Amino acid sequence: MNKIKIGILGFGNIGTGVWNIIEENSNKINNYLSNTLEVQKILVRDIYKNRNISVPQKMLTTDPMEIIDDPEIDIIVEVLGGIHPAFEYIKQSFEKGKHVVTANKAVIATHGEILRQLAQEHNVALRYEASVGGGIPIINTLTQSLSANKIEELVGIINGTTNYILTQMSDFGMDFDEALKLAQEKGYAEADPTSDIQGEDVAFKLSILITTAFGIRISPQDIPREGITKISKKDIDYASQLGYKIKLFATAKRIDNNFEFHVHPTLVPIHHPLASVNNEFNALFIRGNAVGELMLYGKGAGSMPTGSAVMGDILEISKIIGINFKSAPLNILSENNLNIVGEGLSQYYLRTQVIDQPGVLGKISSTFGKYGISLESVVQRSRGNDSVPLIFVTHEVERHQLDKALEEIKISGLVNEVASILKVENL
Amino acid sequence: MNKIKIGILGFGNIGTGVWNIIEENSNKINNYLSNTLEVQKILVRDIYKNRNISVPQKMLTTDPMEIIDDPEIDIIVEVLGGIHPAFEYIKQSFEKGKHVVTANKAVIATHGEILRQLAQEHNVALRYEASVGGGIPIINTLTQSLSANKIEELVGIINGTTNYILTQMSDFGMDFDEALKLAQEKGYAEADPTSDIQGEDVAFKLSILITTAFGIRISPQDIPREGITKISKKDIDYASQLGYKIKLFATAKRIDNNFEFHVHPTLVPIHHPLASVNNEFNALFIRGNAVGELMLYGKGAGSMPTGSAVMGDILEISKIIGINFKSAPLNILSENNLNIVGEGLSQYYLRTQVIDQPGVLGKISSTFGKYGISLESVVQRSRGNDSVPLIFVTHEVERHQLDKALEEIKISGLVNEVASILKVENL
Repeated sequence: MNKIKIGILGFGNIGTGVWNIIEENSNKINNYLSNTLEVQKILVRDIYKNRNISVPQKMLTTDPMEIIDDPEIDIIVEVLGGIHPAFEYIKQSFEKGKHVVTANKAVIATHGEILRQLAQEHNVALRYEASVGGGIPIINTLTQSLSANKIEELVGIINGTTNYILTQMSDFGMDFDEALKLAQEKGYAEADPTSDIQGEDVAFKLSILITTAFGIRISPQDIPREGITKISKKDIDYASQLGYKIKLFATAKRIDNNFEFHVHPTLVPIHHPLASVNNEFNALFIRGNAVGELMLYGKGAGSMPTGSAVMGDILEISKIIGINFKSAPLNILSENNLNIVGEGLSQYYLRTQVIDQPGVLGKISSTFGKYGISLESVVQRSRGNDSVPLIFVTHEVERHQLDKALEEIKISGLVNEVASILKVENL
Repeated sequence: MNKIKIGILGFGNIGTGVWNIIEENSNKINNYLSNTLEVQKILVRDIYKNRNISVPQKMLTTDPMEIIDDPEIDIIVEVLGGIHPAFEYIKQSFEKGKHVVTANKAVIATHGEILRQLAQEHNVALRYEASVGGGIPIINTLTQSLSANKIEELVGIINGTTNYILTQMSDFGMDFDEALKLAQEKGYAEADPTSDIQGEDVAFKLSILITTAFGIRISPQDIPREGITKISKKDIDYASQLGYKIKLFATAKRIDNNFEFHVHPTLVPIHHPLASVNNEFNALFIRGNAVGELMLYGKGAGSMPTGSAVMGDILEISKIIGINFKSAPLNILSENNLNIVGEGLSQYYLRTQVIDQPGVLGKISSTFGKYGISLESVVQRSRGNDSVPLIFVTHEVERHQLDKALEEIKISGLVNEVASILKVENL
């Protein structure tokens, strides 16, 4: 039998994970395939860089075309990250008749549709399990195991950096900056954490999930999103008093004919399984019309877990190489009849600072009432200062109604500050 | 394009689930396949039985060969349950060149190896996602997503009946008989619940999981197992006081070169995710050497969830029908170098009734010590009667050592009863 040869574009965190798994588990892998899987070449920035890994130097190259043009290579593993030049390399790989496995959420979220089309035209496979949720088999579950379901709802914690930060704030009373610093020291946050903490990374992943689960194309930049930078220790304490944890949720759901989606810090009831997903762990809660409730939980990032997902894709392709591979049709259902709503109705948690004066609560409540907003609970603390915190949890309301009400309340001069606006999800 | 036609053997709980999913989600399914999936014929016991489902009567037959011999049928769905005649029907289907999807744990646990071989010889597919964990994608995850991992450990709650009963006992203070009766009323337990409550059902499923994850063949009857019939309200209360919940665990793990596996009611720390898996829900905790910890959670039984898994398998096969299907090689790694241990080391929870006499605890403790058994904790309650409860949690010990010590302690006359022996898993 011919050996199966792979070329790896990028030798950072994930690329070295793939290398290490092939080294450590080669017996199991070759037995599984009844074949031999080999790394042929690896694209690096610097061949002579000191690496904590023993790779034959002749296997390294700085020229991508040495890999993409190599007729012996069957599968290209794209783990460069970023949109360019990853997109071009993937395209060129297809043109050379090569299958591609990628862990690149940015390129799939922004160019997934055209890449899937190109793969089909060239009769090759494109797989991207590792682009969402690291080692957790989210894409396979949605595209294979649940393929006969209409998906009703996805709610997930799909960013390990922010979940680590929120867990440290919640469990050890850290403030945001302190927790971020610790996350950076532990390698859970990058030197520039912007994309994670602002929710951009989650929006990329949610865009991929929406296409995969609902067959609807929503650009990452069209997903309403808010990061975790404005969350304070105080919010975490008040949430806890109200029976909630704060998690950064990616949400997509069908409600009758409306389709809602957003990335938002959210209060989740303390006994819900998603409230117990801590530190760098990720979890995705799925509701399908046949399967009911399903939850997948595991490590959403890291060299070996993400490498595990890349390898799962490589082995799926390897099993069919030489069996007259035929690219499956583009099998995503387009839900054309749905209204693309975005935010939708939600309960909100509001932390405000109000002036300490009799009747303030009454006046604020009637302003909310004027805009059709009813309150589920109100918490008032530590009277006696000029400015006192007042926490509201609303019933379901549209965001623009809430914003109008808050505008009027601010103008009234009763409220010094609206410090936090978080969603509440009573799953 | 040709229609894809399926024949269903059996029209009970799961068979009707498959029918209902095809009816409800036909748009999504046909779009996904770029093809039409149709039920051609269904094997039933009684054609004229009153059904809560509208199926054309001409589609029903009492003759299995009318389905197995039908040249138009591509895929046979075997949802009869039980070993015979399911085994023979599957074999005959292969001989007629038909792919088979089954939800039958008994036939896969006992004859899976030969059936996989026969499928390969006839170049057809055999899939059985629904045989373990209902709608939860356990088999796909182990065989595809985690295929490059060496699996280190599997721990799962994979029987909804017993988990429902234990949840009722724990949350509502019911005793076993009361909870079983409620489970039967709600349809979570069968009229004859023996296979579930004695752990036989779990042993079938664990046997399939062991073959799938470790490539080791262990017959269901060779799996050490204990059911939940001896668990009393008292055990649940004491466990709770010690910080544990009691769950029926299926366990398989590799420890160095030893391979341990068993089905046993187990105390699990109250904050571990598996402790929160309640009622009819199932969950499987997986540890792989690349992916780390992974947990899958969902409905482990029921018409629609199990039907969802059957449909996932049907659609996976349907995608490749007509693309020159070639049966994949038998891709299970045989871990030949492992010692098959069975029970292995474990911590144990013991509930005893001892005579109320000074020095009893000391004498029992020294007998334990004689057999190398050290104690993690002891709970003594309600002094003042002739016979008082004494609860022990041991450190890790082999079961046969524990049994020897208990034998000697019983002979001493100090212990009136060893009422419960449960495992403790400090995951």
